[in-house]
Amino acid sequence: MRMLYKYTINTEQENFYNITAKVRAALETSGVESGTALVFCPHTTAGITINENADGDVVRDMLLGLNKAFPDRAEFHHAEGNSHAHLKASCIGCFVSLIVENSSLVLGRWQGIYFCEFDGPREREFFVKIIAEK
Amino acid sequence: MRMLYKYTINTEQENFYNITAKVRAALETSGVESGTALVFCPHTTAGITINENADGDVVRDMLLGLNKAFPDRAEFHHAEGNSHAHLKASCIGCFVSLIVENSSLVLGRWQGIYFCEFDGPREREFFVKIIAEK
Amino acid sequence: MRMLYKYTINTEQENFYNITAKVRAALETSGVESGTALVFCPHTTAGITINENADGDVVRDMLLGLNKAFPDRAEFHHAEGNSHAHLKASCIGCFVSLIVENSSLVLGRWQGIYFCEFDGPREREFFVKIIAEK
Repeated sequence: MRMLYKYTINTEQENFYNITAKVRAALETSGVESGTALVFCPHTTAGITINENADGDVVRDMLLGLNKAFPDRAEFHHAEGNSHAHLKASCIGCFVSLIVENSSLVLGRWQGIYFCEFDGPREREFFVKIIAEK
Repeated sequence: MRMLYKYTINTEQENFYNITAKVRAALETSGVESGTALVFCPHTTAGITINENADGDVVRDMLLGLNKAFPDRAEFHHAEGNSHAHLKASCIGCFVSLIVENSSLVLGRWQGIYFCEFDGPREREFFVKIIAEK
Repeated sequence: MRMLYKYTINTEQENFYNITAKVRAALETSGVESGTALVFCPHTTAGITINENADGDVVRDMLLGLNKAFPDRAEFHHAEGNSHAHLKASCIGCFVSLIVENSSLVLGRWQGIYFCEFDGPREREFFVKIIAEK
C-alpha cells in the first residue's frame, strides 16, 4: 500500500466520531510535506464530513436536524428499513478531500473531520489516502 | 486528453444510473496502478453520488426522500421551474473522488457510483479523470 | 506555498458568492496545464458548491429551499444559535474538486463555483490548491 491507511471504528446507533487525529497520524506516517489527503468511507449508511470540533451540541443538533429533514417514511420500500440512513449518507457524502501544506492538514480553527454513523451499531472502516505533490 | 474520459448518458425524468462499470473501464484504459479518480458531472440539475448497488428500492426511496426534503415550492422565482432539481444537485454534489489501489477502485462491497438525474429526460455527460500517483 | 492560493471575502448574512474567476486566476498563476484543483472553505458555517451561473433566482431559491429543509429549531442546544448553518454547511460540503485540462477548468456551460455563506456577515477565506499531473 502506497500511503494508503485503513482504520476501524466501533460505532453506536447514530453518532459522529472525530477522526482528525487519525488522519493527522496517517499524514505523519506518510512523511508527505505538500499535496492532498482523501478520507473515504466504504459504507452506504455512513459518511464523512467536516464540522465544528469544539461544542458537542453541534453534532447533537446536526443529527436531530438530519432526522427531521430525512425521516424514516412509511412509503419507503427497502426491506432493511434503513433508507433514511442511505439518504443521510448521500447528503453528507462518503469522502472529504483536504489540502496538505508544510506537512500539516489545512483546516480552520474550528474544523474537525468526522466519521458519521447513521445505521449502527457496527464495526466500520475508513481509508486515508495521502497524495504527494509532484 | 491525459487520462480524461468523457461519457454520455440518456436519462429519464428522474433516476439514478449506476456508472461504476464505466469508471472502472476508464481506469483500466488509463493503465494506472495507484492514485485517485475524480468523477465529475458538468450539469447543474444532476449530480454524482455513491450508494447501495444491490437493492433498487434504495434508489427509489432516496428519490422519494429527496423530493420530500426539497419539494418544488410556490415561492420559487426561477422561471425554468426546476429550482428543486438545482437544490438536490448541490445537496448530492456534482463529483466524487475515489482511491485507486492495485489498478482497482477502492469501493465497499455494497457501493456503486451513480449519475443522479433530477431534471430529465436529457442527454447528459460526465467525466472521469484518473490521477496517477507520482 | 506550492500552488496554494488564499482569498478573502466579505459576506452578508446569507448568500452565495460566485468565485469562479478567482479559481481561474489561481489556475492561471500556477501555470498548470493538466491536473486537478481543490477549492476548500476552512469554516464550519459556510461551504463551497457548484451550481447555475446565469439566473440569480436559482441562488435565491436554493437559499429558501435550504432554510425550509434545515430550519432553526427550538430543540437545538448549541448556544451560538447557528446549528441550522452548521447543518447547511455539511449538507452542501466545504470543498469541491475540479478537473484541469488545457490550462482550463473543466466546467459545464451553466456551472459556476460558489462560496456559500450561511452565518454572516463575516470576513471569510477560502483556499485554492492546484495539483499538477505528473
